[in-house]
Amino acid sequence: VGSFQPSEHQHIRYNPLRDDWVLVSAHRMRRPWQGQVEKPPPEDIPRCDLSNPLCPGATRANGEVNPQYNSTFVFENDFPALQPDAPEPDVCDHPLFRAASARGVCKVMCFHPWSDLTLPLMSLAEIRAVIDKWAELLVELGTSYAWVQIFENKGAMMGCSNPHPHCQVWASNFLPNEARLEDRTQRQHLEQRGVPMLLEYARLEAQRKERLVVENADWLVVVPYWAVWPFQTLLLPRRHVCRFQELSDGERDSLASIMKRLLTKFDNLFEVSFPYSMGWHGAPTGPHLGANCGHWQLHAHYYPPLLRSATVRKFLVGYELLAQAQRDLTPEQAAERLRNLPEEHYRVRPQ
Amino acid sequence: VGSFQPSEHQHIRYNPLRDDWVLVSAHRMRRPWQGQVEKPPPEDIPRCDLSNPLCPGATRANGEVNPQYNSTFVFENDFPALQPDAPEPDVCDHPLFRAASARGVCKVMCFHPWSDLTLPLMSLAEIRAVIDKWAELLVELGTSYAWVQIFENKGAMMGCSNPHPHCQVWASNFLPNEARLEDRTQRQHLEQRGVPMLLEYARLEAQRKERLVVENADWLVVVPYWAVWPFQTLLLPRRHVCRFQELSDGERDSLASIMKRLLTKFDNLFEVSFPYSMGWHGAPTGPHLGANCGHWQLHAHYYPPLLRSATVRKFLVGYELLAQAQRDLTPEQAAERLRNLPEEHYRVRPQ
Ligand SMILES: O=P(O)(O)O[C@H]1O[C@H](CO)[C@@H](O)[C@H](O)[C@H]1O
Ligand SMILES: O=P(O)(O)O[C@H]1O[C@H](CO)[C@@H](O)[C@H](O)[C@H]1O
Repeated sequence: VGSFQPSEHQHIRYNPLRDDWVLVSAHRMRRPWQGQVEKPPPEDIPRCDLSNPLCPGATRANGEVNPQYNSTFVFENDFPALQPDAPEPDVCDHPLFRAASARGVCKVMCFHPWSDLTLPLMSLAEIRAVIDKWAELLVELGTSYAWVQIFENKGAMMGCSNPHPHCQVWASNFLPNEARLEDRTQRQHLEQRGVPMLLEYARLEAQRKERLVVENADWLVVVPYWAVWPFQTLLLPRRHVCRFQELSDGERDSLASIMKRLLTKFDNLFEVSFPYSMGWHGAPTGPHLGANCGHWQLHAHYYPPLLRSATVRKFLVGYELLAQAQRDLTPEQAAERLRNLPEEHYRVRPQ
Repeated sequence: VGSFQPSEHQHIRYNPLRDDWVLVSAHRMRRPWQGQVEKPPPEDIPRCDLSNPLCPGATRANGEVNPQYNSTFVFENDFPALQPDAPEPDVCDHPLFRAASARGVCKVMCFHPWSDLTLPLMSLAEIRAVIDKWAELLVELGTSYAWVQIFENKGAMMGCSNPHPHCQVWASNFLPNEARLEDRTQRQHLEQRGVPMLLEYARLEAQRKERLVVENADWLVVVPYWAVWPFQTLLLPRRHVCRFQELSDGERDSLASIMKRLLTKFDNLFEVSFPYSMGWHGAPTGPHLGANCGHWQLHAHYYPPLLRSATVRKFLVGYELLAQAQRDLTPEQAAERLRNLPEEHYRVRPQ
């Protein structure tokens, strides 16, 4: 037994934001893969297809016709998991059978009129329009709802059922599990150390550099020390920002820029439109708008499944579901690979 | 707004074992599915294939040749996520960068010499041999390791890379996240209510019956009130059992029987070899063997991904990863469908 090498010797790492652990066994990258191989995403998506309910001019499930939009376009999800008016569940008769009311709204937001574009291939001005619309929705839905979850499922592997560039916004009258968890851990950190957790974390990562992927004057992206997904990243502002809607004009521009740089690197990694689920977390809203939320720091999580190539993903299954997440390369190795990739998208590079 | 109907009106339900919530939006089952369609599992698996490292007589990655086994067969995983002798990580220099040592072993256990069999198609005596081997491994590895996780990934959809019927056993010197969580919630329940949580829960479900799938004198299987996966089930003993190895001879026979009945129903649901990840949870071992573990109740979790058919699964992605799990049919609806299925396997039914 020699001296400890994170890329050679398995160990566990603590995630202070989720108060749990991940098993890092980087030596496992050497094992051959004989399991499921994913279909790469289609390359020939038509720019406009009137049978696709997200396209300008298309008819949706409820019979409505989309306008000829030319920037972002928001509409109510035709099959919403949350509706504004569900009746209260009956009073619970036993602590092992507890239900509570869930009210909310689910919206879909198209990023662009073209189905064959993705965020990294959009212009900075187009990405900026997405950012402004996010802020607008967060203000609008956050007036009454406790939590507004913006998330993007990208790629069939991540359950996305439509190639048109879009995200979803689900607002709820309750704090979902992840929000409750991050609320508790960030509150405890501020109490114990006098500084918001992710503000302290961003400062340290900016110095240490080994997990940095991209940075600019306002933002940085790291593969977090406790990453679970192979190329998971965390996008953080450098200053203390509780909620997305507080971002200044300049910060929105620099966000568009860093998102484009990160997502271009993602696509360049395996030269494929990189699948992921991503989403924004900030201080709760609605009834929480008046409360002290100084422990919160705005951030976005990116959870991409690919591990070895455009067609071989990491499965978070048996041991992960029943015991604990396990990863096959160190976060430092993942960050280094992303950092070293070009910032010009492989599809627009001169041949 | 009429009166509350769980199958019509979305609500959230509390999971007392994980101390979190699930969003139940059963009306969403009506939405059309245009996303990823899974490949059904191959039907023509050769019974014996010497190029498959799990077969009797085959050569494994490390050069060893498997014996001509004719029941179960256990060997060390050739690409283990946990090894017995990793050095200690360096002392942590900051609370946001915490690592700890991880030591353990990873074993693979073949259930049967034939590659074209699965548990529901094995005889009761053959399943009983699997159960006895599980108990033996739990005793052996539990002597020194704090947690011994037995789990089965079945089907390519659940990251299983080999069709040969097998499970894995990962033993660790630490309590994984799920173990820590269930330890805390079960301890609190016993303190507050004077009875182990899952013992009380099994008694109530045996009376209420609406979430029951199969039962016998010693065991019952329910779709838990807080299920996340569409047809998730929980297998529970009727008496208080802390650890698998305490099961009596009769309980092992009745376990073989109830497993066969449950897994046959699973396969019959969509007439396909039903994919899932499953695993056993019981009181911790190793250094915990002497401690009071009376709050623990042995149980197995089954997490199957299929939702609508043999080829359409539920994706736990954007909202689930970033906010909270969401399901599309009620646990009562899922239990009723499973309960009403025949207990004769579709592949052995007379035509
Ligand atoms: O060891 P296997 O079966 O090849 O690997 C499978 O199960 C492991 C434990 O759940 C996961 O970490 C892997 O991602 C999965 O592919
Ligand atoms: O609404 P969509 O995109 O069709 O659905 C997708 O995202 C949802 C939210 O993460 C998931 O619950 C679904 O399982 C997934 O297929």
